[in-house]
Amino acid sequence: MPYVYNLFLLTTLLLTIAQSGMAQPSKRPRDYGIRIGVLPTGTLNAITDVPGVRVGQVTLQQGQNIRTGVTAILPHEGNQFQQKSPAAIYIGNGFGKLMGISQIEELGTLETPIVLTNTLSVPTAADALIDYTLAQTGNEQVRSVNAVVGETNDGFLNDIRGRHVSKQHVLDAIRQAKSGPVEEGNVGAGTGTVCFGFKGGIGTSSRKLPASLGGYTIGALVQTNFGGVLQIAGVPVGVALGKYSFRENLDGSCMVVVLTDAPLDARNLKRLAKRAFMGLAQTGGIASNGSGDYVIAVSTAYRIPHETTSAFDEQKLLRNDNTSPLFLAAIEATEEAIINSLFAAKTLSGDQGHRVEQLPVEKVVDLLKKAGQLH
Amino acid sequence: MPYVYNLFLLTTLLLTIAQSGMAQPSKRPRDYGIRIGVLPTGTLNAITDVPGVRVGQVTLQQGQNIRTGVTAILPHEGNQFQQKSPAAIYIGNGFGKLMGISQIEELGTLETPIVLTNTLSVPTAADALIDYTLAQTGNEQVRSVNAVVGETNDGFLNDIRGRHVSKQHVLDAIRQAKSGPVEEGNVGAGTGTVCFGFKGGIGTSSRKLPASLGGYTIGALVQTNFGGVLQIAGVPVGVALGKYSFRENLDGSCMVVVLTDAPLDARNLKRLAKRAFMGLAQTGGIASNGSGDYVIAVSTAYRIPHETTSAFDEQKLLRNDNTSPLFLAAIEATEEAIINSLFAAKTLSGDQGHRVEQLPVEKVVDLLKKAGQLH
Amino acid sequence: MPYVYNLFLLTTLLLTIAQSGMAQPSKRPRDYGIRIGVLPTGTLNAITDVPGVRVGQVTLQQGQNIRTGVTAILPHEGNQFQQKSPAAIYIGNGFGKLMGISQIEELGTLETPIVLTNTLSVPTAADALIDYTLAQTGNEQVRSVNAVVGETNDGFLNDIRGRHVSKQHVLDAIRQAKSGPVEEGNVGAGTGTVCFGFKGGIGTSSRKLPASLGGYTIGALVQTNFGGVLQIAGVPVGVALGKYSFRENLDGSCMVVVLTDAPLDARNLKRLAKRAFMGLAQTGGIASNGSGDYVIAVSTAYRIPHETTSAFDEQKLLRNDNTSPLFLAAIEATEEAIINSLFAAKTLSGDQGHRVEQLPVEKVVDLLKKAGQLH
Amino acid sequence: MPYVYNLFLLTTLLLTIAQSGMAQPSKRPRDYGIRIGVLPTGTLNAITDVPGVRVGQVTLQQGQNIRTGVTAILPHEGNQFQQKSPAAIYIGNGFGKLMGISQIEELGTLETPIVLTNTLSVPTAADALIDYTLAQTGNEQVRSVNAVVGETNDGFLNDIRGRHVSKQHVLDAIRQAKSGPVEEGNVGAGTGTVCFGFKGGIGTSSRKLPASLGGYTIGALVQTNFGGVLQIAGVPVGVALGKYSFRENLDGSCMVVVLTDAPLDARNLKRLAKRAFMGLAQTGGIASNGSGDYVIAVSTAYRIPHETTSAFDEQKLLRNDNTSPLFLAAIEATEEAIINSLFAAKTLSGDQGHRVEQLPVEKVVDLLKKAGQLH
Repeated sequence: MPYVYNLFLLTTLLLTIAQSGMAQPSKRPRDYGIRIGVLPTGTLNAITDVPGVRVGQVTLQQGQNIRTGVTAILPHEGNQFQQKSPAAIYIGNGFGKLMGISQIEELGTLETPIVLTNTLSVPTAADALIDYTLAQTGNEQVRSVNAVVGETNDGFLNDIRGRHVSKQHVLDAIRQAKSGPVEEGNVGAGTGTVCFGFKGGIGTSSRKLPASLGGYTIGALVQTNFGGVLQIAGVPVGVALGKYSFRENLDGSCMVVVLTDAPLDARNLKRLAKRAFMGLAQTGGIASNGSGDYVIAVSTAYRIPHETTSAFDEQKLLRNDNTSPLFLAAIEATEEAIINSLFAAKTLSGDQGHRVEQLPVEKVVDLLKKAGQLH
Repeated sequence: MPYVYNLFLLTTLLLTIAQSGMAQPSKRPRDYGIRIGVLPTGTLNAITDVPGVRVGQVTLQQGQNIRTGVTAILPHEGNQFQQKSPAAIYIGNGFGKLMGISQIEELGTLETPIVLTNTLSVPTAADALIDYTLAQTGNEQVRSVNAVVGETNDGFLNDIRGRHVSKQHVLDAIRQAKSGPVEEGNVGAGTGTVCFGFKGGIGTSSRKLPASLGGYTIGALVQTNFGGVLQIAGVPVGVALGKYSFRENLDGSCMVVVLTDAPLDARNLKRLAKRAFMGLAQTGGIASNGSGDYVIAVSTAYRIPHETTSAFDEQKLLRNDNTSPLFLAAIEATEEAIINSLFAAKTLSGDQGHRVEQLPVEKVVDLLKKAGQLH
Repeated sequence: MPYVYNLFLLTTLLLTIAQSGMAQPSKRPRDYGIRIGVLPTGTLNAITDVPGVRVGQVTLQQGQNIRTGVTAILPHEGNQFQQKSPAAIYIGNGFGKLMGISQIEELGTLETPIVLTNTLSVPTAADALIDYTLAQTGNEQVRSVNAVVGETNDGFLNDIRGRHVSKQHVLDAIRQAKSGPVEEGNVGAGTGTVCFGFKGGIGTSSRKLPASLGGYTIGALVQTNFGGVLQIAGVPVGVALGKYSFRENLDGSCMVVVLTDAPLDARNLKRLAKRAFMGLAQTGGIASNGSGDYVIAVSTAYRIPHETTSAFDEQKLLRNDNTSPLFLAAIEATEEAIINSLFAAKTLSGDQGHRVEQLPVEKVVDLLKKAGQLH
Repeated sequence: MPYVYNLFLLTTLLLTIAQSGMAQPSKRPRDYGIRIGVLPTGTLNAITDVPGVRVGQVTLQQGQNIRTGVTAILPHEGNQFQQKSPAAIYIGNGFGKLMGISQIEELGTLETPIVLTNTLSVPTAADALIDYTLAQTGNEQVRSVNAVVGETNDGFLNDIRGRHVSKQHVLDAIRQAKSGPVEEGNVGAGTGTVCFGFKGGIGTSSRKLPASLGGYTIGALVQTNFGGVLQIAGVPVGVALGKYSFRENLDGSCMVVVLTDAPLDARNLKRLAKRAFMGLAQTGGIASNGSGDYVIAVSTAYRIPHETTSAFDEQKLLRNDNTSPLFLAAIEATEEAIINSLFAAKTLSGDQGHRVEQLPVEKVVDLLKKAGQLH
């Protein structure tokens, strides 16, 4: 690209390309006939199947060493601070820097969009969420913001110490958030991640319960950066490909965001979050010592107003007895979102010449075929 | 049986038979070539591979309606109260009656054998553990005992409301505890349990880390009474057999006991316990609303004396960094212990004419063969 | 009593006396002009000020060595299993044997009366609660009961190893439960307890919020058996009386039961429970290593049916923003309940000739007078 | 100051004054004869009595509306990342933004200095801690940093939305950290805080156990910004001054940092942290709904190396049985640190013309004198 005269222009250009999502989308596992679980997916098989949910991503892939980004998830289209969402967090393994934990645990509500990025950019992203919230119409008197930012460590491919994510990138991700299909793979906060020794990234999936079970939708979005012994639809792909280890390179992390339109309060959302982590287990993840594994679960079924004249919140909540199908849905959607991230991610080189190969999809499909797991 | 003159004699006879373990042991999954995970097992592939660990079981299978029992796990051969073991409990789903939780969480130690039984017999078992502890030589001054009793609900096959477990049964299970092979299936606390719609029971398995990873042994023992969508070595057996549901019959519970000779303190034992629950996830368990899923993890590597002249406990603990292989081992051992319980359990009829079929082992083996999962 | 011919008769007689509450009630701190906190009490200054709440107590004071008993708290007059109450438990210090913790935490509901007794009688009491529940009309199909039993260790005055509490005692306590004044001091589960080096026991208190703050009632009942440096209405009574220690005799425990008619769910009940523990701190309690300090908080504002045709629970819950006055009320009621227990308890001798003096009330009143704390 | 020509210079000048601590120190409560608790203080009655502990503070008091700052606590003089300290966090009320919680909970270690600031400046402070850590000699390969930043909301006196704390301020606070006396009151992160309706701020205190109890030192540092019904040495000062409320203005927060040279692991440090919160209760704090109350407890007795050739950490830990005196010490030091903050803080005006009066010390002393609480 000799006609690019300075780094700034180049950066801008690449960033533009990345943001516009020009990459050809990969076939997703279901396109190959791979079935995970027993429940039907939503229309898009994405977290955005939950009505009102939007996702925005900014990908930073610049020069030889910048391989990172931002993924923002917005539960609803209103002012999230003024109309909080019931929420809970489950900590699978707490070796991570997720911000916003204790307030969600105490109050049971989410008051900002959820932002995912890299480990060392959490403060920047949180600062941007505060900017965003303070600047929103209606929030002129707000003096306290519980910014929720998750992360995984992309420091193998990305110059993470350079902290290349800016507040503007985060604000852009939020601004660009939209419903519809969600880009997967080397995108947003998944740009530089590594999963089971292969290139990881962003993945998403959903489940739609039959009407007899309430008809609820459960969507998951994951940022995959962890290790273990990979299984796909139960097939021991990691072993077959000789790509696993219980000695090293296991560390990393996984962020899981689960949205649902089922009317759950924080207590049952925490239970739902815990099941999402069981979906991670189904892929062969082991939550190794160095993995920061978190699930944030949010319901869109109702909102808790920041201020109101009533002393009460009136809620019509799904009974404990009726949660089991949602639990299964959260497990399946999380498992499939992780596998989707692996199918979408592409081989990438980055910082210090490190290179991570993508999942050899054809080989994998062949393995699944032999195992009778193509449908 | 006309030559049996009264119910008491019959009961005694059957009990004697059950206790003496005369049933022919089933082939275990590994005998069929089924491999779960990537780590090698211990010699017996049982929790008793952890040196010093003993298991005792009393089976109550009497008349038409008594299908229950007791399983006791003793971490070491000394006086457990005077020589406490580091321990932790992870609660996968707390819809259960496990006793002893808060003291283990607070102090990080186990001071009685672990006893498993049915839901409504927990108080009886706890009372027996107090009897046992108060009566032990050296415990003459003991006035506080944190009895640890876990349970699952065998009320489908067993007349659970009859509470047929006596303190003597519990004391017998403790007294009979021994090292060596552990009987699996319809035995002890697993006598009347149901798992994935098939007959469940007691199962056990172990892993032995290579010397390069510390050479530690991790053993699991499970009491399986839960539901979900069964997978065996990743193969979707539940779907293939048409035996799963996300509507009903999911409830139940699973108790998991994990023992290891790795020198872990309570904090890392809790992390280990959490991984065992990931092994349950690997079998397709979903921790449904009504399931009481608990993992108790104990280290035999050192003991905390009840009384001592020193103000200090000196410990040489495995560093956080070195725990990941143990985590994988706990996942694998738990998964395999669950599958082992299903292979060992036999079709059983019980209370109110209920009948639960055993896993159709031959069909399962065939399914695994087709999936390339026999080795 | 020469006309009593055998121990059984003697026991029965003494028990009858104890149960009929013939002891002359002591003046309570407020009768002396002692004021704790700033909020008004309910009519009785007792947990039974919360409408529908009943308390039953059985006192076992027999011979030279039996000094124990049972206190039962019933949140409402219906079938507690079929009409569960929202509930939560806060663990101040988990060196105790409280049963029923994990299910309350998981499901947010209480399904039995709450029973308090001595440490080694917890299993007996739990068994009795199961008896009680199974036998209740409407519970014919119940096969799982989460018995909630708390305890403190009265083993200094009571022959605790003798386990003199029977199931019948527990059933009697439940059966005798009534609204109205609650007997305090050496009664029920407080018969043999020791607090701050003085005779402890059962105490109760309540607060009634002004209508502008919702008009809710918050009641506390405590079983006091702990140590620290006693303060009464802030006056350092323990220091003044030379009766405190940071070396020894600190251990013991405190059970706190908090009831309210405010419409709180389990999350906010747990927050309320945590504040009750701050009331214990206000008395100079230190939650020493060996203390098992627990708070069980229950709302009577609504009930969760065990079974219902609806998939939903509809709830009108007090908003987070409106909980602070309830928090203060829980602190004050707990503090005063503890002080009330000390004022009511009487000097007692018991097992092994141990003797514990009552709080020297006149001296205490004098100290408070000098400190300007009589009103 | 007519010779100051621009805001930058003015700012710098004021900052310099603030940083150099030119303000005349107030008499501390003990100087008036006020005694809190029964244990002796350390030499300085400050957190810095714990050997090696350093505190650095930067005060931002500029113009009419900037009233905020930074307080940094450094457990030891080495590289905190390479030589981690055992640590734990207790959450009294989680309505706050403390960063770093889950990793401390999971791994039991602290790897950065602890920084306190205002609510909306947490991300800035965390970013600065990352800068600080990455830049330290020996940390060239570090790619993950668990920055620990606490906060309270000074938005009544401070233009908190302006986020006037810069990374440089944080780095300055760390750089200036020193042993010796700690400035209290309107300083550092306590510059703009409000406590019990009076001006709050930074406070510190310590306790030194007698040699017979181990001779350990426990120090507390608090950032006081909360409400309730103030008690000083048990005397109901808030009521006497008519300065309390259970309706409004209760919210706020309290950060407590506890350091000790006692050899505790994370489990027992969490227990210690929980007791510090009991010290807050002793002052009449109620942990109102909107209060973010956290305790961070750290031991300096040993360090956990980030990397080492050994697979083990060898530790000589104080037994559970010996922790009670430490618990009492943490309660007392926290209570006194809070009272110290109130005695040191001065009347301050700030943003939007808000003004907060200082505690009327002479009146308070008079009240305590009348109550017989001057010694």
